[in-house]
Amino acid sequence: MNKASLQTIHNNIKPYIHKTPVFTSQLLNDICEAEVFFKCENFQKMGAFKMRGATHAILNLTQDQKRKGVVTHSSGNFAQALALAAKSIGVKAYIVMPKNAPQVKKEAVLGYGGIISFCEPTNQAREAMAKKIQQETGATFLHPSNNIDVINGQATAAIELLEEYPNLKYIYVPVGGGGLLAGTILAANAYSKNCKVIAGEPENVNDAYRSLLSGKIESNTANNTIADGLKTQLGDKNFPIIKKYVESIQLVTEIEIVKAMTLIWQRLKLVVEPSSAVALAAVLKQKNKIKGKKIGVILSGGNVDITNLPF
Amino acid sequence: MNKASLQTIHNNIKPYIHKTPVFTSQLLNDICEAEVFFKCENFQKMGAFKMRGATHAILNLTQDQKRKGVVTHSSGNFAQALALAAKSIGVKAYIVMPKNAPQVKKEAVLGYGGIISFCEPTNQAREAMAKKIQQETGATFLHPSNNIDVINGQATAAIELLEEYPNLKYIYVPVGGGGLLAGTILAANAYSKNCKVIAGEPENVNDAYRSLLSGKIESNTANNTIADGLKTQLGDKNFPIIKKYVESIQLVTEIEIVKAMTLIWQRLKLVVEPSSAVALAAVLKQKNKIKGKKIGVILSGGNVDITNLPF
Repeated sequence: MNKASLQTIHNNIKPYIHKTPVFTSQLLNDICEAEVFFKCENFQKMGAFKMRGATHAILNLTQDQKRKGVVTHSSGNFAQALALAAKSIGVKAYIVMPKNAPQVKKEAVLGYGGIISFCEPTNQAREAMAKKIQQETGATFLHPSNNIDVINGQATAAIELLEEYPNLKYIYVPVGGGGLLAGTILAANAYSKNCKVIAGEPENVNDAYRSLLSGKIESNTANNTIADGLKTQLGDKNFPIIKKYVESIQLVTEIEIVKAMTLIWQRLKLVVEPSSAVALAAVLKQKNKIKGKKIGVILSGGNVDITNLPF
Repeated sequence: MNKASLQTIHNNIKPYIHKTPVFTSQLLNDICEAEVFFKCENFQKMGAFKMRGATHAILNLTQDQKRKGVVTHSSGNFAQALALAAKSIGVKAYIVMPKNAPQVKKEAVLGYGGIISFCEPTNQAREAMAKKIQQETGATFLHPSNNIDVINGQATAAIELLEEYPNLKYIYVPVGGGGLLAGTILAANAYSKNCKVIAGEPENVNDAYRSLLSGKIESNTANNTIADGLKTQLGDKNFPIIKKYVESIQLVTEIEIVKAMTLIWQRLKLVVEPSSAVALAAVLKQKNKIKGKKIGVILSGGNVDITNLPF
């Protein structure tokens, strides 16, 4: 993906997304012994970077496809993102959700005009339901992370960061399904000569880390992490990009995630979800590597249940 | 206080403070049926607007006074603000704190280089201790809210807001000691033709509301509110300004404060202290008054114990 193509994508989605601010903190710079630039996607529309990929994926459809709508299965941020992006563009969004999804998530999708179909809480059931909707409506299926249009859309967060701060040595992102990581790599390759991308991943769901080691996509047997957005696994569209270009994947413990989240809440005064803290936790484990350098951190989102916090 | 004088004060403190961002939210605009501009003093240095007043009050001292240092009694944001402002300017700050003040607040003051003297947790004891330090060191006493230089410094938050959004009809602030309210009034009078200032106050510590009714400074017998920054009472320097110019003081319940705080955390993704939520709670009680108008809300600070939240 060359710079001109990414630039066109960015220009196309600009009317539908926020250009999020970049925050800095002297205290966090002191702790990290580096200059750290936080890209605040918690302030993105619907509260997460996923709005970028969802918007681009819908805009990139043909008129005929747009008329028939889009469908995805997700109980997380991508469901909300697809519903809101579809509403903004004037397209129907069918969202398959497990029937035991939290009420607040159901309401958020409904609030953005999404059409929810509930299914049993298994992978098989949600895939079957999405397939059924595709067949009945002709809607286009959009995967939350393993779709090249979605990946290209996610690239725009790092594009904005690099346009503002071109001399970043590293950009740290969390890795779950791999859409943000692959997109950030595409942006860094196109917009910078030597900026490398590093991913943070919870030790408890270390499938991406193991995938890099084995050279094939691994999955998790357990998924016990506070970073609930990172439980998913890589896909065949993003793994080749990640495998070829990622600088490294840094594993972090649950305690390290909560510690980083506390720093962001207390010192930056930002409400971020645990997945965002995974990126800062990785930074804090690599202090030797970043010492004295300029680095970026993508705070991926702010959709967290404030009645159920880890501190 | 005329516009030119306030402008000079603002220019003088600019090197020592952040120009904080102004946030908006479509969802909060929808809820309020108005255009609401949030001035984010939670992102101010040391986490609250108090940095502005403390900085101006120190800068306005004579060279001789600066050499002898400053002293205040406070266990809250002003203690941290005075310590940090004094450190930035190169002046000693003596802080009188009750010995039962939370450890985190003691550490924050020490971290900013403040020299703490502990006293018994009574008004009498802290005033006596401050007087003793004044006598021994020649330090200048600076009151957290009832000092005209402090008040003029606090005015600069609203100045920045009005410079960016000149057509605000109302600015809502919380009222505790009255420094922010009086300062905001001075700014509105000087920088706008018809912007009025409205204060939110917890029903449980409604001394300012009662002071307006009786025409003299009232105090509280109980102080049971989550908005711990607002337990103090007005003073003879700020009350005349407030009495003459404030549009009204809107009382809000503890439940309304927590509800407003939840909105700010969940929707704006901002960590703010309960006192800040008091201003939004007042807005939400005056929906008829603000309908269709542009209004400002000063989010006073973000220093809150995230391990002890009301939701």
